[in-house]
Amino acid sequence: MAKRLMPLLNRVLVEKIVPPAKTHAGILLPETSNKLDSGKVLAVGPGLRDKTGNHIPVAVKEGDTVLLPEYGGTTVKLGEKEYHLYRDEDIMGTLHD
Amino acid sequence: MAKRLMPLLNRVLVEKIVPPAKTHAGILLPETSNKLDSGKVLAVGPGLRDKTGNHIPVAVKEGDTVLLPEYGGTTVKLGEKEYHLYRDEDIMGTLHD
Amino acid sequence: MAKRLMPLLNRVLVEKIVPPAKTHAGILLPETSNKLDSGKVLAVGPGLRDKTGNHIPVAVKEGDTVLLPEYGGTTVKLGEKEYHLYRDEDIMGTLHD
Amino acid sequence: MAKRLMPLLNRVLVEKIVPPAKTHAGILLPETSNKLDSGKVLAVGPGLRDKTGNHIPVAVKEGDTVLLPEYGGTTVKLGEKEYHLYRDEDIMGTLHD
Amino acid sequence: MAKRLMPLLNRVLVEKIVPPAKTHAGILLPETSNKLDSGKVLAVGPGLRDKTGNHIPVAVKEGDTVLLPEYGGTTVKLGEKEYHLYRDEDIMGTLHD
Amino acid sequence: MAKRLMPLLNRVLVEKIVPPAKTHAGILLPETSNKLDSGKVLAVGPGLRDKTGNHIPVAVKEGDTVLLPEYGGTTVKLGEKEYHLYRDEDIMGTLHD
Amino acid sequence: MAKRLMPLLNRVLVEKIVPPAKTHAGILLPETSNKLDSGKVLAVGPGLRDKTGNHIPVAVKEGDTVLLPEYGGTTVKLGEKEYHLYRDEDIMGTLHD
Repeated sequence: MAKRLMPLLNRVLVEKIVPPAKTHAGILLPETSNKLDSGKVLAVGPGLRDKTGNHIPVAVKEGDTVLLPEYGGTTVKLGEKEYHLYRDEDIMGTLHD
Repeated sequence: MAKRLMPLLNRVLVEKIVPPAKTHAGILLPETSNKLDSGKVLAVGPGLRDKTGNHIPVAVKEGDTVLLPEYGGTTVKLGEKEYHLYRDEDIMGTLHD
Repeated sequence: MAKRLMPLLNRVLVEKIVPPAKTHAGILLPETSNKLDSGKVLAVGPGLRDKTGNHIPVAVKEGDTVLLPEYGGTTVKLGEKEYHLYRDEDIMGTLHD
Repeated sequence: MAKRLMPLLNRVLVEKIVPPAKTHAGILLPETSNKLDSGKVLAVGPGLRDKTGNHIPVAVKEGDTVLLPEYGGTTVKLGEKEYHLYRDEDIMGTLHD
Repeated sequence: MAKRLMPLLNRVLVEKIVPPAKTHAGILLPETSNKLDSGKVLAVGPGLRDKTGNHIPVAVKEGDTVLLPEYGGTTVKLGEKEYHLYRDEDIMGTLHD
Repeated sequence: MAKRLMPLLNRVLVEKIVPPAKTHAGILLPETSNKLDSGKVLAVGPGLRDKTGNHIPVAVKEGDTVLLPEYGGTTVKLGEKEYHLYRDEDIMGTLHD
Repeated sequence: MAKRLMPLLNRVLVEKIVPPAKTHAGILLPETSNKLDSGKVLAVGPGLRDKTGNHIPVAVKEGDTVLLPEYGGTTVKLGEKEYHLYRDEDIMGTLHD
């Protein structure tokens, strides 16, 4: 069973970050506090070519924490773990502390 | 929990300006005085590339007050605050006193 | 409350001209004499870039009297006055005496 | 009331030619002898720019007699007269004796 | 009444060839022997410009016998005769003995 | 009646290969053994031009055996024989022993 | 009966990898462990040309193990074996141990 997936074109492999159900102080977070998920970038594709052959690199890099769109993305299981593939133009932004 | 969102491509992070329910003189403003919202630009993405690789910067900048379209935009919660992400071509114009 | 709106991209801010209900001689004009509205251009956006980066200025300028399309346009209230925003490619033509 | 309309982009202002109901010899022409109308070109817009900035002039000129498409076109009233605006790519051809 | 039509852009003026109902030997041809019509090219437009201004001439010329698509085309009556206008990219091919 | 058809643009004239109902050993082949038809290329068009005027030749040549798509294609009768016209981008591949 | 298929344009010929129903230790794998199939690349087309004539090679090569999309692809039977044809931009990524 293959363990590593190298995305193609401008696809981005992401592992979703599951927000804690409770805050450190134990307060139950409202389940729908944020419809948008966030995730960690595990791997990115080589990027695209525009209409005249210029290379367009992917807009995020391995290790980035990203804000994911509400819809779209493809679920991929590698071994027992579940990951998600997005096209980079669908990723909303990068998250920073 | 991440506190800062850097938009990608030509996205614009906006905090909506909630119009006062009453004028200074206390007169109740009609609720539907203006269907269009306005907002403050908090952050902008790096922009897009056109079909032949030219860079197209975002049309607004941090600190601008902008007129928002009636529809579209994505709601984003960072901590307890609610923001909105728009593509820059959907923003109608900049507002000035 | 903002008083001035600077349109973005190829948008055009227009104040509609309300045709007189009666001619100078007092004859009641048929209400549907012309389905198309006309209006005065108050402000224009900076224009667009084509696919290879060339700048395309807006086709009309401040002060022009223009023939507006039957549909489309966005209503914008600034203070108590109502204006309309159109994309310049939707404006049919300029009117001259 | 404005008397002259200068079309924008690749629009063409046309006055329709109403075919005679009877031939010179008085024979009643079948009402649907030709679904396509023809018309006289009164004014043309400045034309368009293609994707790389080249200017594309309008394909017909003032004074041409043209064959109009069955559908499309916008009715415009200037004073008491009715005219029609077409995009030049919708005009089928020029008519010659 | 105009007698000659000069097509615009990449349009082609065609006179349909009505296949003989019977072969020379008098055998009745099955009515649906070929769903596709053929026709004679009477006139062609000046052609199109591609996105970067290159001229693209029409693919057929006056006098060609062409295989017409099953659908599309516009009927045009000039005097008492009926002709058809096609865009050149819809014409399937040229027919040769 | 025309005997030869020269396809236009990137069209390809194909004569379908009807697979034998039985193998050489007389075994009846399941009727739906392969939904995809194959055929022999009889003639190809001159090809297309891309957006900037470069010539794009047709991807197959006369004599090739090709794998045809499940849908699409236009039936053409020349004399008593039936042929099919495809756009070259719809042809799946070339078949080789 | 043809034995070899050379894909055209940016098509990719793939033989699907059927995941073992049981692990080596004999544990029955849940039937829907991964909705996405994987497969072995047998042959690739010559690639595409972009709008300005640049050649764009196919993103995968013969021998690669690839992650296939949930939908799309065309089933092709060559002899008694079943293969699948995909456009290269629909292939999600390459799989590695």
